[in-house]
Formats: sequence, structure tokens, C-alpha cells
Amino acid sequence: MSENVRLGFIGCNYRGSGMLSLLSEMEDVDIVAVCDRIESNANKAAAIVTEKGKAEPAKYLDHHELLSRDDIQGVIACTAWLDHVNLAVDCMRAGKYIGFEVGGACSVEECWRLVYAYEETGVPCMMLENCCYGRNELALLNMIKQGLFGELIHMQGAYGHDLSHSLVSRIQERHYRTFHYHHRNCENYPTHELGPICNMLNINRGNRLLTLTSTASKARGLNARAAKMFGEDSMPAQRHWNQGDVITTVIKCAHGETITINLDTTLPRPYSRELCVQGTEGIYMEDGNRIYIEGISQTPHEWDCFAPYLEKYEHPLWKWFKNTGVKGGHGGMDYLVQRAFIESIRDNRETPIDVYDTATWMSITALSEDSIALGSMPVAIPDFTNGLWIDRRPDPKCRYSLDAVHNDLF
Amino acid sequence: MSENVRLGFIGCNYRGSGMLSLLSEMEDVDIVAVCDRIESNANKAAAIVTEKGKAEPAKYLDHHELLSRDDIQGVIACTAWLDHVNLAVDCMRAGKYIGFEVGGACSVEECWRLVYAYEETGVPCMMLENCCYGRNELALLNMIKQGLFGELIHMQGAYGHDLSHSLVSRIQERHYRTFHYHHRNCENYPTHELGPICNMLNINRGNRLLTLTSTASKARGLNARAAKMFGEDSMPAQRHWNQGDVITTVIKCAHGETITINLDTTLPRPYSRELCVQGTEGIYMEDGNRIYIEGISQTPHEWDCFAPYLEKYEHPLWKWFKNTGVKGGHGGMDYLVQRAFIESIRDNRETPIDVYDTATWMSITALSEDSIALGSMPVAIPDFTNGLWIDRRPDPKCRYSLDAVHNDLF
Repeated sequence: MSENVRLGFIGCNYRGSGMLSLLSEMEDVDIVAVCDRIESNANKAAAIVTEKGKAEPAKYLDHHELLSRDDIQGVIACTAWLDHVNLAVDCMRAGKYIGFEVGGACSVEECWRLVYAYEETGVPCMMLENCCYGRNELALLNMIKQGLFGELIHMQGAYGHDLSHSLVSRIQERHYRTFHYHHRNCENYPTHELGPICNMLNINRGNRLLTLTSTASKARGLNARAAKMFGEDSMPAQRHWNQGDVITTVIKCAHGETITINLDTTLPRPYSRELCVQGTEGIYMEDGNRIYIEGISQTPHEWDCFAPYLEKYEHPLWKWFKNTGVKGGHGGMDYLVQRAFIESIRDNRETPIDVYDTATWMSITALSEDSIALGSMPVAIPDFTNGLWIDRRPDPKCRYSLDAVHNDLF
Repeated sequence: MSENVRLGFIGCNYRGSGMLSLLSEMEDVDIVAVCDRIESNANKAAAIVTEKGKAEPAKYLDHHELLSRDDIQGVIACTAWLDHVNLAVDCMRAGKYIGFEVGGACSVEECWRLVYAYEETGVPCMMLENCCYGRNELALLNMIKQGLFGELIHMQGAYGHDLSHSLVSRIQERHYRTFHYHHRNCENYPTHELGPICNMLNINRGNRLLTLTSTASKARGLNARAAKMFGEDSMPAQRHWNQGDVITTVIKCAHGETITINLDTTLPRPYSRELCVQGTEGIYMEDGNRIYIEGISQTPHEWDCFAPYLEKYEHPLWKWFKNTGVKGGHGGMDYLVQRAFIESIRDNRETPIDVYDTATWMSITALSEDSIALGSMPVAIPDFTNGLWIDRRPDPKCRYSLDAVHNDLF
């Protein structure tokens, strides 16, 4: 059998195609099998793999068949949100590392199912949260670990991305995401900003998320978009959307830090993750690409441009990445997060984003839904580690680590 | 008796000196009397008035004596926060218009006292919230009234101002503000951002603030500042400060809009009120001075610089102000807010910021204190109008109006 890491790939539509294409370019990876409920997607996936010069993967419509193969070490899943947990549990029980795309939970219970499956099997489970490997996010992590911000106090982030056109367009094809906006009202996509923030705050490794409140604005954006696209009297323009346009969630951490995250996906706006890092020594703001560090910034109480700081405090992973050639979508983040997963399999170690991180981040969606429904009541965020967070420490040998900066591994 | 507007002035220290100096330059204003508990402050105040060529005002240590004069039509008060409500009630009962500086309440009850005193006497009461007259804020108000943002959905603001040096320095002189940070934990200064946002959302005039949650970060900034200034073992560095460094308050409005405001006054940072206005047609962001309006901005999903919009949508009040010569502190806002108060007295009409606005805005401080103490529980914001907000409409004859844009009055 090949020395390569041998993967199965599940969910081969939109996002899946891009991720699979990138994966197929990796020399040390074999795509043994692909799986999609829709046969044409599975065929398309197999073609993506062979076009990159790799052997044709086996094709399945049912993931249980894929998981029954002995030659697969790990699975990457790019399915609809609602499939993530069941798939992940099945993978762990089948002894396959599981890396799945981002998305939130519908209940706290299903997050616990992930944790229990991991604790029963010992098989790693990783949310493939690409923004954890963003260049800015990692440079900031590096600066934080070097103490430039002092003690961290308050963080902000957002998923500020106008999806209204896509959401409204996909009603006819019954795309799952659109239906979440029709039925639910919650922080449905917290991880792009919350993942990196949790890494910076050592969440589940000496700190934890304690409580949250969540507040939803009214829902008008999708109706307005649909009215522009299809007319005021069209079905999508007349539909009642439960999902508020802007969801504001405020989280309190065990060590007293606060985090504000905004979901903002149905109103016209430029893209931003609105990251803000604030400590006793300074503040970074993604919007405007600026920073102020007391005693380091050039003029007291005036912003510096972040660009030279980014150069100076580049994370060693990104220095290495730039030297070897940045590749993959979303500015390289997709490549890095896949490599983090694949090299964990190769080296037979825990994934840098583990099941506790995954469960914690996903739970925010379900908890925000509860809080909104209860009139912004504070709700407790479970400790999915059952106290292990107090003593958990970074893996000193993982170069993709997000809780420490390992210069010596590059 | 002079045709001028005849004022008494109470509280003649820091902020008071500046406001009094500006007032003393107005030809149509007589400063009949000044009052401060500290005699040297009263003397200093009288000197400020005479230096500007005006008749020497009477000097008082007790405001009751000032209020007993028949020749005073209105009072401006720049006292400590805790004195605002008692002074205002005394002024209304004495038949004097009262305009007082910004600050929050310690209880909801004292906000009701303001409302009752007004309803019993019919004498106007105005918080002198200068930021309501900021150039950007008024241009945005103008744009909102013209429908450029579509239906408003979400607003953000902050008081992002590093006061740590001043707060720590003033421990020795027992400055009142420092003591609030020692004893309390709340959104202690909401109005600079909340006032303009309430104007934009028609609060108390067709809309109202419904509920809020408030969450406090840990308190580290003042200890860190004091350690730098006086050493780690100094009293201010060792003091326990109750006031969290960053307070995040999320408000829900009757018509479904959400508002997030941040108090951020004890960590090193450049000044910003972080205003963000978001509607179904676009978004404005103070940080970065930028805007995106669908169909108007040059490139889809890319920010435009706000500067040309500011020129194009200048509020008529500011057009007039620029033509006649901008004067007064804080970029002219201090002048405009004083004129709004003075001309209301002159014209014998309601103040544009009235007792209901004042009570509503001040209550946020007390309510945020409750919410924080209760673990971010949602708390109800009283309807200080008792239902009048449903039918209240802008005054068509007030050029300083903040709920309509009266081009015809300039």
C-alpha cells in the first residue's frame, strides 16, 4: 500500500469541488474514494481527481460503503451542515480521522455526540476552519504570544458577507442554506471569526467560553434582495424569513475576556471578518487594516498601518508557506488547513483543531438560537472538556499548532 | 430687562470653563449668575465672563440661591454626574429651562423623576449631547431621511477614548469620575454614540428602545496604567477597579432594529465613536471613514470613501454653520448644542433633545449596571413617554431638530 496519506472524500458539490481539486494536487495524498448522494457529483469528483493525474477513486453514493474500506485513513467531508455530525461520528467509529467543513450545530446534544464518539474511539475529529490559518490571524497570534497586546481583554469579529443574492437565487434548487434562513434565527456561521479568536484566547487550553447572549435584528435583507431580483410580488420577496439580518452575540470567557461576534450575511456590504483584538497594551482592527500598540506605534493615540507589523511578526508557518509558494483558495488558508489535517494523519497525532474545539465552536449556533428565542437570555456554554481545559497544553511537535508558535519546527 | 437670553451657569470647573467661555462669546446671551460649590471656581467663572466683555455675573455657592432669581430663564449645568438630576428637577420646579452635560443615571427611578418634574411643570429639560450635532452624524441623519440606507437594521457605536491616564492621575484629587470606576461596573457614558443613533432610529418618535443586555470584560487597564505611571506597588496600581475595561451593550428596538454600543475608556487606543449605520441599502463605518450604498457606490461590494458623500449630503444646519463660520470646541458640536438650547429658550419652544430623550439615554447606564450584575440578563428599558412615542412627531419649526431635516428653515 502507498506511503501516501489515503483519504476518502464526501460531499462533492460547490465547496467540495474546490477542496478536492486542491487536495488532488498534493503528491503525498491518495484520494482512494469519493462519495456523494447525487451520482453526477460523485462522477464529477472522480474526474477532478483523474484530471490531476491521480488514479481514479472508487465512487459511492452511501458513505457507509466508503467507510467500510480498510485502506482509508481519513475522510474530508464538505456536505450540508446537517450531515456533519452524523458523518463525523460514523467516521470516528470506523477508525478514520474526520475533517469536515465549517458550520454550526442545531443542538448542544449533537456537539456532545462528537465528543463522546471521540472519547470512545480516540479517533481525531477536526473542523476544517480555514480562517484559523489566515495570514493576518496567524501574525496576530504570533504577536499575542510575544506579548505585544499585553493581557487580552476584548475581541470582536464578524462574518460580514453579503450572501443575499446567492441565498435568494437558490430557493428554486432547494439549497439547504436558504432553508436555514427561512426556518431558523441564530448565529448560523460563527467559526470564521470565532475560531481564530478562540485560538488567541487559549480557549479549551487554559481558558474557556462561559456564557453568551445573542440578539437578532429584524429580517428585511432577503425580502429586499428578492424584490429587486424577482419583483415585490415574487415568492422569495413575499416569504417570511426567520433569520434576522444581523445577529450580535456576546460571549464571556472564564478569565474575564469578552468576545462580540456578528453574523451579517443578508444586507449589501463589502466583505469583512471585522477582527478586533484588544489588550492592555494595544488594539488591532481589521477594518482599516490598522493597529495601535503603546510605546511601539509611532504617534501616541494614532493608528499605525498594520502592513509593516504583518511583515515583522509574520507567523513562522506563513514565512515557510511564502517561501515554498502560497497555493490554494481563500489566500492559501484552504491549503494550510488541509495540510494541518493530512499531516496529523501522516504523523499519527492529534489534529490542531480537535473535537473539543469543534464541539465548542459549533455549539454557539445552537446556543445563540436558544438565547434569541428567549429574548437574549444569557445561556451557559458547556465545558465539552469536562475540566480538562484547565490543564490542556499545546502539542510541542505540531507545526500547525494554533495555541503556541513553534519556530523550531520550520 | 435685556432682550437677550438670560442664563445661570452651574458647575464651573473643567468642562464648565470651556462651555462658559463659548457661551460668553454669544452676543444674544447674558450670563446673569454663576454657581459652584467651590468659591474659587465661581470666581474663575465670573472672570471668564467679564474677560469676554460681558457684565460681571452674580456668584453663588448654592444653586438654590441662583434659582431664586427672577431674571434667569434657563440654566446650563456642567456639574458632576451625580448632581445632574437633582439640579435639573430644581431648575424645572423654579421654572428655568435646564440644559445639562452628558452622563448616565444611577437608577431608573431618577430618570422618572426628571420626567415627572417636566410633566408637572411643563419646563423643558435637555441633555446637552454635543455629538448629536456632529458633522458626520448630521450628514448621516440627512442621508437616512433621504432613504439612502433603505430601512435601518443595525447600528453600532462606542465611546472609544483612552481616559486611563486622566482617571489614574485624579485619584489624589478625589475626582468623581475616578470613583465611579472604582465602585461601579456599567456603560457609564453611553450618550455620545447612543444619542445620534437614537435620533437616526426615531427613538421616542415612532420607535423606542425595548430591552438590553450588557456584558463587562475584566478590569485590567487602570491597574496597568497605574503600574506604568506610579509603579506596581503604588496604591492606584493595587486598587481593585470594579469597572470592566470594555462594556458591550446590545439594545433591541420596538421596530426590530439592534444597536451595539461599547464603552472602552481604560485601554490604550486611538479615539473613535465607531459609528456604524446599516440598512437594507447600505452601510457606513466611521472607522476607515467609509460607506457602501448599493447602486451608488462605484464598485459592487467595495467601500467608497465617505468624504464626497459628506460634501454631497451635508446637513442644512452644517451648511449654514460652515457659511457663518464654524466655532466652538469639539469641531463645532459644543456651539451647536448650546445654540439649540438657547434658541429654544428664545423662541419659547421645546428643546430638540427633550426630557424623554434625556431620561431614556441616561437610563442605559443604570440598566446596564443591572444587566451586568445579573450575568448579562436582558432587562427592559422603560417607556418614559408612557406610549406617547407612538404619535410623537418632529417639531416642524425647530431648525435644530434631530428627528427631521428642515431645509426650509435655513
